[in-house]
Amino acid sequence: MTQKAFQDYYPDEFATCYGCGRLNQHGLQIKSYWDGEESICHFKPRPYHTGGFPGYVYGGLIASLIDCHGAGTASAAKSRHDGRDMETHPPYRFVTAALHVDYVAPTPIDEILEIRGSVKEIKGRKIIVAVTLSANGNVCAKGEVIAVQMPE
Amino acid sequence: MTQKAFQDYYPDEFATCYGCGRLNQHGLQIKSYWDGEESICHFKPRPYHTGGFPGYVYGGLIASLIDCHGAGTASAAKSRHDGRDMETHPPYRFVTAALHVDYVAPTPIDEILEIRGSVKEIKGRKIIVAVTLSANGNVCAKGEVIAVQMPE
Repeated sequence: MTQKAFQDYYPDEFATCYGCGRLNQHGLQIKSYWDGEESICHFKPRPYHTGGFPGYVYGGLIASLIDCHGAGTASAAKSRHDGRDMETHPPYRFVTAALHVDYVAPTPIDEILEIRGSVKEIKGRKIIVAVTLSANGNVCAKGEVIAVQMPE
Repeated sequence: MTQKAFQDYYPDEFATCYGCGRLNQHGLQIKSYWDGEESICHFKPRPYHTGGFPGYVYGGLIASLIDCHGAGTASAAKSRHDGRDMETHPPYRFVTAALHVDYVAPTPIDEILEIRGSVKEIKGRKIIVAVTLSANGNVCAKGEVIAVQMPE
């Protein structure tokens, strides 16, 4: 993709998140983009991201991907909603107030995971993002992130 | 503590989880114990477990701790409920069907976190565990894990 990822617009001092901060060298460094009205992120689990069953991903990674992709989507969605250009104004900062994940099928560890977000609601400082996580076209988890905008 | 952790009873082939498997050398290797009617786990975040705000823990770690401690508690609770001794019979295996986390306050990264579980419901193969995560006596997150027992 030639788009710049949502996370690449974060100012350096807030680019530290283990899940999505581009400056956290130990972290997952996920990258989220617009794909039409939805947001999209691809992530290849590392071999040690196993769960209690060999060959499958542990639930905490899935929760982390849904959380960070959801919060990033909220941030970009608010910028878009307000007609604010992320090139000239960094995206608003959001934190997760609540996270819900339904694990609907085991997630294979050797596939590239696709995480998709869609904005369900923008209301004041609160944004709700619905997220799915799929492998090989099969939905393995469904989640919801309630993100709240931080004061500037 | 002189108790053996729930996770130390898991058979080797299922001790691979990034969150709680004792054999996952890259993982968090959390340890959960009974503390009366509740279960308890202590965890010291690593310096790189930061969120988007320096000095605070990222939400995915909190979700992971709640998930793995909740599933471990379900497993031990089912053994206790059935009067099955984990010394002679390894605990039942549970997977997380759903996870919910409310982030109620920022979680400081330089404290030992205390994660406590209490069983809300045991019904057939399903167990619901309520979990709190605290730092310095202050609750930073509240969660709920719905765990489902795997066939043996």
